[in-house]
Amino acid sequence: MRIALDAMGSDTCPVPDVEGAVLAAREFGETILIVGDEKRIAPELAKHDTSGLKLEVINATESITMEDKPGLVGKSKPNSSMHVGMNLVKSKDADAFVTAGNTGAAMTIATLFTLKRIDKVKRPALSSLIRVMNGRTIIMLDIGANTDSKPDWLFQFAIMGQIYAQQALGLQNPKVALLSNGEEETKGNQLIHEAGDLLKASKMNFVGNIEPKEMLEGNADVIVSDGFVGNIAIKTLEAMGSTLLKIIRQEIKSDPIATVGGLLAQRAFRRVRKQVDPFEIGGAPLLGVDGVVIIGHGRSNAKAIKNAIGQARMAVKGDVIQSISNGLKDLAE
Amino acid sequence: MRIALDAMGSDTCPVPDVEGAVLAAREFGETILIVGDEKRIAPELAKHDTSGLKLEVINATESITMEDKPGLVGKSKPNSSMHVGMNLVKSKDADAFVTAGNTGAAMTIATLFTLKRIDKVKRPALSSLIRVMNGRTIIMLDIGANTDSKPDWLFQFAIMGQIYAQQALGLQNPKVALLSNGEEETKGNQLIHEAGDLLKASKMNFVGNIEPKEMLEGNADVIVSDGFVGNIAIKTLEAMGSTLLKIIRQEIKSDPIATVGGLLAQRAFRRVRKQVDPFEIGGAPLLGVDGVVIIGHGRSNAKAIKNAIGQARMAVKGDVIQSISNGLKDLAE
Repeated sequence: MRIALDAMGSDTCPVPDVEGAVLAAREFGETILIVGDEKRIAPELAKHDTSGLKLEVINATESITMEDKPGLVGKSKPNSSMHVGMNLVKSKDADAFVTAGNTGAAMTIATLFTLKRIDKVKRPALSSLIRVMNGRTIIMLDIGANTDSKPDWLFQFAIMGQIYAQQALGLQNPKVALLSNGEEETKGNQLIHEAGDLLKASKMNFVGNIEPKEMLEGNADVIVSDGFVGNIAIKTLEAMGSTLLKIIRQEIKSDPIATVGGLLAQRAFRRVRKQVDPFEIGGAPLLGVDGVVIIGHGRSNAKAIKNAIGQARMAVKGDVIQSISNGLKDLAE
Repeated sequence: MRIALDAMGSDTCPVPDVEGAVLAAREFGETILIVGDEKRIAPELAKHDTSGLKLEVINATESITMEDKPGLVGKSKPNSSMHVGMNLVKSKDADAFVTAGNTGAAMTIATLFTLKRIDKVKRPALSSLIRVMNGRTIIMLDIGANTDSKPDWLFQFAIMGQIYAQQALGLQNPKVALLSNGEEETKGNQLIHEAGDLLKASKMNFVGNIEPKEMLEGNADVIVSDGFVGNIAIKTLEAMGSTLLKIIRQEIKSDPIATVGGLLAQRAFRRVRKQVDPFEIGGAPLLGVDGVVIIGHGRSNAKAIKNAIGQARMAVKGDVIQSISNGLKDLAE
């Protein structure tokens, strides 16, 4: 397997990106194609022991920053590491592309300029992988690609998410739910009601509406929402998590006895952070484009990059793209 | 001031409700009208030292449960403690009504059967009061009364929220923001764009779109959203908070050294819980109905009930209803 990695993706690129590629090559034994400015990649690679690792550097003369406007970079930077990396997937020279760069840019370049959509896909969706209380990793989508979604888009998000959960996350007969303001059928807005009707009429393992609490408890495996709502939900999760940990840190530090207690509980807190740390998952798929694309957080460290490459590997192994294509064709027939 | 309290509201009513009334009468020195089944209220009252307190019991022969359908109780239980309490406000025999009961029922009974809407109000909105990082208490609305809101409803929510923040929460020139998936003007869905245009054209202190993280940091005082989105956001906040505290508890208990640390840090954790505890705030207003109505959580304890009564008191002192009425009239002229 050959996985292309955007070396110019993360906020502090190419340092964590290149190190993540080295870690991934070592852990997974796959070939990693490091895509970006070769003059900046070479000195980073030289810092690591890469003997025996399958690493290749593919030069890209442009790179995209977090400040770049997603609507413009498709045309204005045709030689960006994202274009080059995704085109490697398109030409079958790579099996997947991983980036911790500008999400909007990755989406635009994938959808409109390189990979394009899988046949029958109405709208690609951004997803997030979340580790929940029962230890499972679930998928939530759309978390931001589409605002003002239509019911049939949500229906397709459900199909794509279900296939991903099964093929890449290894969940058996994943449960699909719509994120809503209440579990009862009467709850939800117009969009949820209409998408619910489509899902109920399908063969999918649709369990109805789900609220945030039940989502975190792991009562469903595929959480479907409009991109506006999903984005606010995912950002609220992150914001509340970091705010609460900040308050705890402040309060423990403000009191000498608690400070000692905090030191004794340090290992426990480390395990807590590991459980809620998005870097343990690394990245999540952009679903609906014709190739495996995993997008990680801009703040990714090397471990996050390595784990994002791990997600890409599972998606390739699970033949996610072909499965989605088949799934949508079956439905259209 | 006379504040009517629903004794039959909380999940374990009338125990915490009656105790909360006693605490409130003692702390605030106001008259509390305890509304509900007098045969069940009397023995609860007898448990407390009520000498010198201004407490009155108003009998109501029916009560509403959490299982009651909001759409039915308006007609099917015309003598419920909610009807009786709200009618006391309507007839000016009370200045405010407080309940920890069925939110949907309270909304329906207030809007359609007793208080009705303030003139010019298109849709009443449910709110939540949230203590944020900078120590301020902000108001978020709508958190569930209206799904599929229209831009001019959101505009009115902003006005009502701003007036409440100023008159009842004591915030000077409160900043109004729209909850969105990004701060840039291009972010948001159609509803946010259109509501934003209305707010920009107004004299309100509108600071634009806000994301959950900046909301929790206290960058705005009035957070406006559609009820579907607001409900999911508030439930995600609560779910993430309690999930994270649960994980921390589990991890600390799973390790003997950390357990000792946890004991030493107990006071710090108590302060953390106090900061994020919704019972410290007690309840939040149903805005847009023609009378002060404060709704608390079903799980309220006596302290929460007392604090909800405190919120009602501030709303009455701030003359919120008249101010909203004037604010909407000014705008219509």
